[in-house]
Amino acid sequence: MITTIAFDADDTLWHTERIFISTKDKYKQLLADYHDGDWIERHLDETETNNIKHFGYGIKGFTLSMIETACELSEGRITGDKIKQIIEFAREMIAAPIEVLEGVRETIEELSKDYRLMVITKGDLLDQETKLARSGLGDYFDGFEIVPRKDAKIYKYVMRRHALSPEEFLMVGNSLKSDILPVIEAGARAVFVPYETEWFHERVTDEELIGKKFGRIEKMSELSDWLKNEENRI
Amino acid sequence: MITTIAFDADDTLWHTERIFISTKDKYKQLLADYHDGDWIERHLDETETNNIKHFGYGIKGFTLSMIETACELSEGRITGDKIKQIIEFAREMIAAPIEVLEGVRETIEELSKDYRLMVITKGDLLDQETKLARSGLGDYFDGFEIVPRKDAKIYKYVMRRHALSPEEFLMVGNSLKSDILPVIEAGARAVFVPYETEWFHERVTDEELIGKKFGRIEKMSELSDWLKNEENRI
Repeated sequence: MITTIAFDADDTLWHTERIFISTKDKYKQLLADYHDGDWIERHLDETETNNIKHFGYGIKGFTLSMIETACELSEGRITGDKIKQIIEFAREMIAAPIEVLEGVRETIEELSKDYRLMVITKGDLLDQETKLARSGLGDYFDGFEIVPRKDAKIYKYVMRRHALSPEEFLMVGNSLKSDILPVIEAGARAVFVPYETEWFHERVTDEELIGKKFGRIEKMSELSDWLKNEENRI
Repeated sequence: MITTIAFDADDTLWHTERIFISTKDKYKQLLADYHDGDWIERHLDETETNNIKHFGYGIKGFTLSMIETACELSEGRITGDKIKQIIEFAREMIAAPIEVLEGVRETIEELSKDYRLMVITKGDLLDQETKLARSGLGDYFDGFEIVPRKDAKIYKYVMRRHALSPEEFLMVGNSLKSDILPVIEAGARAVFVPYETEWFHERVTDEELIGKKFGRIEKMSELSDWLKNEENRI
Protein backbone atom coordinates (compact mmCIF):
# COMPACT_ATOMS: atom_id res chain seq x y z
CA MET A 1 0.00 0.00 0.00
CA ILE A 2 1.31 3.44 -0.93
CA THR A 3 2.74 5.38 2.01
CA THR A 4 5.06 7.76 0.19
CA ILE A 5 4.51 9.95 -2.84
CA ALA A 6 7.48 11.51 -4.58
CA PHE A 7 7.08 14.37 -7.02
CA ASP A 8 9.28 15.60 -9.78
CA ALA A 9 9.75 19.37 -9.41
CA ASP A 10 10.26 21.26 -12.69
CA ASP A 11 7.06 21.38 -14.73
CA THR A 12 5.38 19.01 -12.28
CA LEU A 13 5.13 21.26 -9.21
CA TRP A 14 6.07 24.57 -10.80
CA HIS A 15 6.61 26.02 -14.27
CA THR A 16 10.17 25.84 -15.53
CA GLU A 17 9.98 25.24 -19.23
CA ARG A 18 8.14 28.55 -19.62
CA ILE A 19 11.16 30.39 -18.26
CA PHE A 20 13.43 28.58 -20.70
CA ILE A 21 11.05 29.27 -23.58
CA SER A 22 10.79 32.97 -22.81
CA THR A 23 14.58 33.16 -22.40
CA LYS A 24 15.02 31.48 -25.76
CA ASP A 25 12.73 34.12 -27.28
CA LYS A 26 14.84 36.92 -25.83
CA TYR A 27 17.95 35.13 -27.03
CA LYS A 28 16.63 34.86 -30.56
CA GLN A 29 15.88 38.58 -30.58
CA LEU A 30 19.35 39.32 -29.28
CA LEU A 31 20.90 37.41 -32.19
CA ALA A 32 18.36 38.48 -34.82
CA ASP A 33 21.06 40.35 -36.77
CA TYR A 34 22.88 37.10 -37.45
CA HIS A 35 20.20 34.49 -38.18
CA ASP A 36 16.49 33.79 -38.10
CA GLY A 37 14.88 32.38 -34.99
CA ASP A 38 14.39 28.79 -36.14
CA TRP A 39 17.99 28.45 -37.19
CA ILE A 40 19.19 29.83 -33.86
CA GLU A 41 16.91 27.54 -31.89
CA ARG A 42 18.00 24.46 -33.83
CA HIS A 43 21.66 25.23 -33.22
CA LEU A 44 21.08 26.00 -29.56
CA ASP A 45 19.28 22.67 -29.08
CA GLU A 46 22.19 20.89 -30.73
CA THR A 47 24.81 22.60 -28.59
CA GLU A 48 22.75 21.88 -25.49
CA THR A 49 22.47 18.19 -26.34
CA ASN A 50 26.24 17.97 -26.86
CA ASN A 51 26.97 19.84 -23.66
CA ILE A 52 24.67 17.95 -21.29
CA LYS A 53 27.30 15.28 -20.67
CA HIS A 54 29.77 18.00 -19.63
CA PHE A 55 27.55 20.53 -17.93
CA GLY A 56 24.50 18.53 -16.80
CA TYR A 57 21.04 20.03 -16.51
CA GLY A 58 20.09 23.43 -15.26
CA ILE A 59 20.38 27.11 -15.94
CA LYS A 60 24.17 27.43 -15.80
CA GLY A 61 24.79 24.71 -18.36
CA PHE A 62 22.03 26.13 -20.56
CA THR A 63 23.66 29.56 -20.36
CA LEU A 64 27.06 28.22 -21.38
CA SER A 65 25.31 26.61 -24.36
CA MET A 66 23.63 29.91 -25.25
CA ILE A 67 27.00 31.68 -25.16
CA GLU A 68 28.74 29.01 -27.19
CA THR A 69 25.99 29.01 -29.81
CA ALA A 70 26.12 32.80 -30.02
CA CYS A 71 29.86 32.66 -30.73
CA GLU A 72 29.35 30.05 -33.41
CA LEU A 73 26.35 31.57 -35.16
CA SER A 74 27.99 35.00 -35.29
CA GLU A 75 31.22 33.42 -36.57
CA GLY A 76 33.01 35.02 -33.68
CA ARG A 77 31.60 38.48 -34.34
CA ILE A 78 29.35 38.48 -31.27
CA THR A 79 30.02 41.51 -29.04
CA GLY A 80 30.95 41.45 -25.38
CA ASP A 81 27.82 43.43 -24.57
CA LYS A 82 25.60 40.75 -26.02
CA ILE A 83 27.45 38.05 -24.12
CA LYS A 84 26.94 40.04 -20.93
CA GLN A 85 23.24 40.20 -21.72
CA ILE A 86 23.14 36.41 -22.00
CA ILE A 87 24.77 36.14 -18.55
CA GLU A 88 22.14 38.58 -17.34
CA PHE A 89 19.46 36.22 -18.72
CA ALA A 90 20.93 33.54 -16.45
CA ARG A 91 20.66 35.73 -13.37
CA GLU A 92 17.08 36.59 -14.30
CA MET A 93 16.17 32.94 -14.78
CA ILE A 94 17.66 32.01 -11.41
CA ALA A 95 15.77 34.83 -9.72
CA ALA A 96 12.50 34.32 -11.64
CA PRO A 97 9.39 34.05 -9.47
CA ILE A 98 8.19 30.50 -8.96
CA GLU A 99 4.79 29.86 -10.51
CA VAL A 100 3.28 26.81 -8.89
CA LEU A 101 1.12 24.81 -11.34
CA GLU A 102 -2.64 24.97 -11.05
CA GLY A 103 -4.10 22.72 -8.38
CA VAL A 104 -0.70 21.71 -7.02
CA ARG A 105 -0.82 23.60 -3.73
CA GLU A 106 -4.25 22.27 -2.73
CA THR A 107 -3.39 18.71 -3.75
CA ILE A 108 -0.06 18.70 -1.93
CA GLU A 109 -1.63 20.15 1.19
CA GLU A 110 -4.38 17.54 1.19
CA LEU A 111 -2.09 14.58 0.48
CA SER A 112 0.43 15.64 3.11
CA LYS A 113 -2.13 14.65 5.76
CA ASP A 114 -2.16 11.00 4.68
CA TYR A 115 1.13 10.40 2.91
CA ARG A 116 4.80 11.08 3.31
CA LEU A 117 5.71 13.46 0.48
CA MET A 118 9.07 13.86 -1.22
CA VAL A 119 10.62 15.74 -4.09
CA ILE A 120 13.01 13.93 -6.45
CA THR A 121 14.57 16.16 -9.06
CA LYS A 122 17.56 16.70 -11.31
CA GLY A 123 19.27 20.06 -11.62
CA ASP A 124 21.52 22.29 -9.57
CA LEU A 125 21.17 21.81 -5.85
CA LEU A 126 21.34 25.51 -4.98
CA ASP A 127 18.85 26.38 -7.68
CA GLN A 128 16.32 23.66 -6.78
CA GLU A 129 16.59 24.37 -3.09
CA THR A 130 15.78 28.05 -3.49
CA LYS A 131 12.92 27.18 -5.84
CA LEU A 132 11.39 24.87 -3.25
CA ALA A 133 11.72 27.57 -0.62
CA ARG A 134 10.26 30.26 -2.88
CA SER A 135 7.38 27.99 -3.96
CA GLY A 136 6.05 28.02 -0.42
CA LEU A 137 5.59 24.25 -0.65
CA GLY A 138 8.70 23.30 1.33
CA ASP A 139 6.92 22.47 4.57
CA TYR A 140 4.78 19.76 3.01
CA PHE A 141 7.77 17.64 2.01
CA ASP A 142 9.73 15.30 4.27
CA GLY A 143 12.40 14.50 1.74
CA PHE A 144 14.19 16.44 -0.96
CA GLU A 145 16.47 14.48 -3.24
CA ILE A 146 18.59 16.04 -5.95
CA VAL A 147 19.78 13.28 -8.24
CA PRO A 148 22.30 13.44 -11.09
CA ARG A 149 20.02 11.36 -13.36
CA LYS A 150 16.79 9.43 -13.06
CA ASP A 151 17.21 5.74 -13.73
CA ALA A 152 15.98 2.61 -11.94
CA LYS A 153 19.20 2.39 -9.91
CA ILE A 154 18.75 5.90 -8.53
CA TYR A 155 15.12 5.26 -7.59
CA LYS A 156 16.11 2.05 -5.82
CA TYR A 157 18.83 3.95 -3.99
CA VAL A 158 16.40 6.66 -2.87
CA MET A 159 13.88 4.07 -1.67
CA ARG A 160 16.58 2.18 0.22
CA ARG A 161 17.83 5.39 1.77
CA HIS A 162 14.34 6.13 3.09
CA ALA A 163 13.73 2.49 4.07
CA LEU A 164 10.83 2.17 1.62
CA SER A 165 9.73 -0.95 -0.24
CA PRO A 166 8.72 -0.44 -3.90
CA GLU A 167 5.12 -1.39 -2.97
CA GLU A 168 4.74 1.70 -0.82
CA PHE A 169 6.33 4.15 -3.25
CA LEU A 170 4.58 6.25 -5.90
CA MET A 171 6.34 8.69 -8.23
CA VAL A 172 4.44 11.53 -9.92
CA GLY A 173 5.94 13.54 -12.78
CA ASN A 174 5.70 14.99 -16.25
CA SER A 175 8.45 12.98 -17.93
CA LEU A 176 7.79 9.42 -19.15
CA LYS A 177 11.53 8.94 -19.57
CA SER A 178 12.61 10.18 -16.14
CA ASP A 179 9.63 9.89 -13.81
CA ILE A 180 7.68 6.90 -15.11
CA LEU A 181 9.67 4.21 -16.94
CA PRO A 182 12.63 3.91 -14.52
CA VAL A 183 10.25 3.84 -11.54
CA ILE A 184 8.32 0.93 -13.06
CA GLU A 185 11.65 -0.77 -13.72
CA ALA A 186 12.50 -0.31 -10.04
CA GLY A 187 9.27 -2.16 -9.14
CA ALA A 188 7.31 0.84 -7.87
CA ARG A 189 4.31 2.73 -9.24
CA ALA A 190 4.12 5.98 -11.16
CA VAL A 191 1.57 8.53 -12.30
CA PHE A 192 2.18 10.64 -15.40
CA VAL A 193 0.94 14.25 -15.49
CA PRO A 194 1.81 15.69 -18.90
CA TYR A 195 3.01 19.29 -19.01
CA GLU A 196 1.88 21.78 -21.65
CA THR A 197 5.06 21.24 -23.64
CA GLU A 198 7.35 18.25 -23.85
CA TRP A 199 11.08 18.67 -23.39
CA PHE A 200 12.97 17.44 -26.41
CA HIS A 201 15.61 15.67 -24.29
CA GLU A 202 12.95 13.56 -22.62
CA ARG A 203 11.03 11.98 -25.50
CA VAL A 204 10.39 8.25 -25.50
CA THR A 205 9.20 6.07 -28.35
CA ASP A 206 5.86 4.25 -28.37
CA GLU A 207 7.75 0.93 -28.28
CA GLU A 208 9.27 1.81 -24.93
CA LEU A 209 5.78 2.15 -23.48
CA ILE A 210 4.45 -1.23 -24.64
CA GLY A 211 3.22 -3.31 -21.71
CA LYS A 212 4.11 -0.59 -19.17
CA LYS A 213 1.42 -0.01 -16.57
CA PHE A 214 1.19 3.42 -14.98
CA GLY A 215 -1.39 5.98 -14.03
CA ARG A 216 -2.15 9.01 -16.12
CA ILE A 217 -3.96 12.14 -15.00
CA GLU A 218 -4.47 15.36 -16.90
CA LYS A 219 -3.75 17.69 -14.02
CA MET A 220 -2.43 17.45 -10.49
CA SER A 221 -5.83 18.04 -8.87
CA GLU A 222 -6.89 14.60 -10.17
CA LEU A 223 -4.24 12.83 -8.09
CA SER A 224 -6.35 12.60 -4.92
CA ASP A 225 -9.14 10.87 -6.83
CA TRP A 226 -6.67 8.56 -8.48
CA LEU A 227 -5.42 7.55 -5.03
CA LYS A 228 -8.96 7.04 -3.73
CA ASN A 229 -9.39 4.27 -6.27
CA GLU A 230 -8.39 1.25 -4.21
CA GLU A 231 -7.08 -0.60 -7.22
CA ASN A 232 -4.42 2.04 -7.72
CA ARG A 233 -3.46 2.40 -4.10
CA ILE A 234 -3.04 -1.11 -2.76
CA MET B 1 32.98 7.78 20.63
CA ILE B 2 33.61 8.48 16.96
CA THR B 3 31.91 6.00 14.62
CA THR B 4 31.67 8.11 11.48
CA ILE B 5 34.24 10.24 9.69
CA ALA B 6 33.11 12.66 7.02
CA PHE B 7 35.56 14.19 4.58
CA ASP B 8 35.39 17.31 2.52
CA ALA B 9 36.26 16.46 -1.08
CA ASP B 10 37.95 19.28 -3.03
CA ASP B 11 41.51 19.87 -1.81
CA THR B 12 40.96 17.45 1.05
CA LEU B 13 40.70 14.16 -0.87
CA TRP B 14 41.86 15.36 -4.28
CA HIS B 15 43.44 18.43 -5.83
CA THR B 16 40.96 20.98 -7.16
CA GLU B 17 42.47 24.38 -6.55
CA ARG B 18 45.40 23.43 -8.78
CA ILE B 19 43.00 23.03 -11.71
CA PHE B 20 41.48 26.45 -11.00
CA ILE B 21 44.92 28.03 -10.65
CA SER B 22 46.20 26.59 -13.91
CA THR B 23 42.96 27.62 -15.65
CA LYS B 24 43.36 31.14 -14.30
CA ASP B 25 46.89 31.19 -15.77
CA LYS B 26 45.59 30.18 -19.18
CA TYR B 27 42.84 32.77 -18.83
CA LYS B 28 45.31 35.53 -18.06
CA GLN B 29 47.34 34.61 -21.12
CA LEU B 30 44.20 34.63 -23.24
CA LEU B 31 43.43 38.19 -22.13
CA ALA B 32 47.02 39.43 -22.06
CA ASP B 33 46.29 41.90 -24.89
CA TYR B 34 43.86 43.79 -22.68
CA HIS B 35 45.41 43.89 -19.19
CA ASP B 36 48.16 42.53 -17.03
CA GLY B 37 47.67 39.33 -15.08
CA ASP B 38 47.20 40.81 -11.61
CA TRP B 39 44.54 43.20 -12.77
CA ILE B 40 42.67 40.38 -14.53
CA GLU B 41 42.87 38.12 -11.50
CA ARG B 42 41.63 40.82 -9.14
CA HIS B 43 38.62 41.52 -11.35
CA LEU B 44 37.86 37.86 -11.82
CA ASP B 45 37.91 37.31 -8.06
CA GLU B 46 35.51 40.23 -7.63
CA THR B 47 33.09 38.97 -10.27
CA GLU B 48 33.23 35.50 -8.76
CA THR B 49 32.44 36.80 -5.28
CA ASN B 50 29.44 38.73 -6.64
CA ASN B 51 28.21 35.78 -8.65
CA ILE B 52 28.40 33.11 -5.96
CA LYS B 53 24.96 34.00 -4.65
CA HIS B 54 23.51 33.52 -8.13
CA PHE B 55 25.59 30.70 -9.52
CA GLY B 56 26.89 28.88 -6.44
CA TYR B 57 30.21 27.04 -6.36
CA GLY B 58 31.74 24.95 -9.05
CA ILE B 59 33.19 25.02 -12.51
CA LYS B 60 30.12 26.28 -14.40
CA GLY B 61 29.64 29.31 -12.19
CA PHE B 62 33.38 30.01 -12.33
CA THR B 63 33.25 29.85 -16.12
CA LEU B 64 30.36 32.30 -16.31
CA SER B 65 32.44 34.61 -14.13
CA MET B 66 35.45 34.22 -16.44
CA ILE B 67 33.29 35.09 -19.43
CA GLU B 68 31.69 38.08 -17.74
CA THR B 69 35.05 39.42 -16.60
CA ALA B 70 36.46 38.99 -20.10
CA CYS B 71 33.61 41.09 -21.53
CA GLU B 72 34.17 43.78 -18.94
CA LEU B 73 37.95 43.97 -19.09
CA SER B 74 37.93 44.12 -22.88
CA GLU B 75 35.20 46.78 -22.79
CA GLY B 76 33.10 44.53 -24.98
CA ARG B 77 35.86 44.00 -27.55
CA ILE B 78 36.45 40.36 -26.62
CA THR B 79 36.12 38.06 -29.64
CA GLY B 80 33.79 35.10 -29.96
CA ASP B 81 36.78 32.83 -30.48
CA LYS B 82 38.23 33.78 -27.12
CA ILE B 83 34.87 33.22 -25.43
CA LYS B 84 34.73 29.79 -27.02
CA GLN B 85 38.17 29.08 -25.65
CA ILE B 86 36.94 29.96 -22.15
CA ILE B 87 34.06 27.48 -22.56
CA GLU B 88 36.64 24.95 -23.69
CA PHE B 89 38.56 25.62 -20.44
CA ALA B 90 35.37 24.56 -18.61
CA ARG B 91 35.12 21.30 -20.48
CA GLU B 92 38.80 20.62 -19.79
CA MET B 93 38.38 21.36 -16.08
CA ILE B 94 35.39 19.03 -15.85
CA ALA B 95 37.30 16.26 -17.63
CA ALA B 96 40.62 16.85 -15.81
CA PRO B 97 42.13 13.73 -14.27
CA ILE B 98 41.56 13.44 -10.54
CA GLU B 99 44.77 13.65 -8.54
CA VAL B 100 44.19 12.13 -5.12
CA LEU B 101 46.24 13.90 -2.43
CA GLU B 102 49.28 12.18 -0.99
CA GLY B 103 48.47 9.59 1.67
CA VAL B 104 44.72 9.85 1.17
CA ARG B 105 44.12 6.50 -0.47
CA GLU B 106 46.02 4.51 2.18
CA THR B 107 44.42 6.41 5.05
CA ILE B 108 40.90 6.06 3.67
CA GLU B 109 41.41 2.38 3.04
CA GLU B 110 42.69 1.77 6.55
CA LEU B 111 40.00 3.85 8.29
CA SER B 112 37.20 2.26 6.29
CA LYS B 113 37.80 -0.94 8.26
CA ASP B 114 36.92 0.67 11.60
CA TYR B 115 34.73 3.65 10.76
CA ARG B 116 31.81 4.56 8.59
CA LEU B 117 33.17 7.05 6.02
CA MET B 118 31.26 9.79 4.26
CA VAL B 119 31.93 12.66 1.87
CA ILE B 120 30.28 16.03 2.50
CA THR B 121 30.95 18.58 -0.20
CA LYS B 122 29.65 21.65 -1.94
CA GLY B 123 29.61 21.98 -5.71
CA ASP B 124 27.74 20.57 -8.65
CA LEU B 125 26.26 17.16 -8.05
CA LEU B 126 27.16 15.76 -11.46
CA ASP B 127 30.68 17.11 -11.23
CA GLN B 128 31.36 15.82 -7.71
CA GLU B 129 29.85 12.45 -8.45
CA THR B 130 32.06 11.84 -11.46
CA LYS B 131 35.09 13.04 -9.48
CA LEU B 132 34.38 10.53 -6.72
CA ALA B 133 34.01 7.78 -9.32
CA ARG B 134 37.19 8.78 -11.14
CA SER B 135 39.16 9.07 -7.89
CA GLY B 136 38.75 5.35 -7.35
CA LEU B 137 37.81 6.05 -3.71
CA GLY B 138 34.04 5.63 -4.14
CA ASP B 139 33.81 2.14 -2.63
CA TYR B 140 35.21 3.25 0.71
CA PHE B 141 32.38 5.68 1.39
CA ASP B 142 28.92 4.81 2.70
CA GLY B 143 27.50 8.27 2.31
CA PHE B 144 27.92 11.04 -0.23
CA GLU B 145 26.26 14.34 0.58
CA ILE B 146 26.28 17.33 -1.74
CA VAL B 147 25.24 20.36 0.26
CA PRO B 148 24.41 23.88 -0.93
CA ARG B 149 26.45 25.44 1.86
CA LYS B 150 28.28 24.29 4.97
CA ASP B 151 26.83 25.74 8.13
CA ALA B 152 25.90 24.23 11.51
CA LYS B 153 22.32 23.65 10.37
CA ILE B 154 23.40 21.60 7.38
CA TYR B 155 25.76 19.47 9.49
CA LYS B 156 22.97 18.84 11.99
CA TYR B 157 20.68 17.87 9.14
CA VAL B 158 23.22 15.43 7.71
CA MET B 159 23.81 13.86 11.13
CA ARG B 160 20.07 13.51 11.71
CA ARG B 161 19.61 11.99 8.29
CA HIS B 162 22.20 9.35 9.09
CA ALA B 163 20.91 8.90 12.66
CA LEU B 164 24.21 10.07 14.15
CA SER B 165 24.73 11.89 17.41
CA PRO B 166 27.32 14.70 17.37
CA GLU B 167 29.52 12.66 19.74
CA GLU B 168 30.09 10.00 17.11
CA PHE B 169 30.72 12.37 14.20
CA LEU B 170 34.08 13.71 13.00
CA MET B 171 34.56 16.04 10.04
CA VAL B 172 37.90 16.33 8.24
CA GLY B 173 38.64 19.12 5.79
CA ASN B 174 40.88 21.91 4.55
CA SER B 175 38.57 24.85 5.23
CA LEU B 176 38.29 26.35 8.71
CA LYS B 177 35.21 28.24 7.60
CA SER B 178 33.32 25.34 6.04
CA ASP B 179 34.67 22.14 7.55
CA ILE B 180 35.70 23.10 11.07
CA LEU B 181 33.84 26.03 12.68
CA PRO B 182 30.26 25.02 11.73
CA VAL B 183 30.92 21.42 12.80
CA ILE B 184 32.06 22.59 16.23
CA GLU B 185 28.95 24.78 16.38
CA ALA B 186 26.86 21.69 15.63
CA GLY B 187 28.44 19.98 18.65
CA ALA B 188 30.63 17.54 16.77
CA ARG B 189 34.39 17.27 16.30
CA ALA B 190 36.61 18.34 13.42
CA VAL B 191 40.15 17.92 12.15
CA PHE B 192 41.76 20.57 9.98
CA VAL B 193 44.18 19.51 7.21
CA PRO B 194 45.46 22.67 5.52
CA TYR B 195 45.87 22.58 1.75
CA GLU B 196 48.88 24.07 -0.04
CA THR B 197 46.88 27.21 -0.89
CA GLU B 198 43.97 28.82 0.87
CA TRP B 199 40.85 29.75 -1.08
CA PHE B 200 40.09 33.44 -0.75
CA HIS B 201 36.36 32.82 -0.21
CA GLU B 202 37.06 30.68 2.81
CA ARG B 203 39.27 32.86 5.00
CA VAL B 204 38.41 33.29 8.68
CA THR B 205 39.76 35.83 11.15
CA ASP B 206 41.84 34.88 14.18
CA GLU B 207 39.00 36.13 16.40
CA GLU B 208 36.66 33.52 14.99
CA LEU B 209 39.05 30.80 16.14
CA ILE B 210 39.36 31.95 19.76
CA GLY B 211 38.33 29.21 22.15
CA LYS B 212 37.54 26.76 19.34
CA LYS B 213 38.86 23.27 19.96
CA PHE B 214 39.68 21.13 16.94
CA GLY B 215 42.36 18.80 15.71
CA ARG B 216 45.04 19.85 13.26
CA ILE B 217 47.21 17.56 11.19
CA GLU B 218 49.66 18.49 8.46
CA LYS B 219 48.71 15.75 6.06
CA MET B 220 46.02 13.10 5.76
CA SER B 221 48.35 10.24 6.63
CA GLU B 222 48.50 11.62 10.20
CA LEU B 223 44.77 11.07 10.71
CA SER B 224 45.06 7.45 11.81
CA ASP B 225 47.53 8.41 14.54
CA TRP B 226 45.32 11.29 15.62
CA LEU B 227 42.44 8.83 16.02
CA LYS B 228 44.61 6.39 17.96
CA ASN B 229 45.00 9.01 20.65
CA GLU B 230 42.20 8.08 22.99
CA GLU B 231 41.69 11.66 24.11
CA ASN B 232 40.70 12.64 20.59
CA ARG B 233 38.51 9.67 19.88
CA ILE B 234 36.26 9.32 22.92
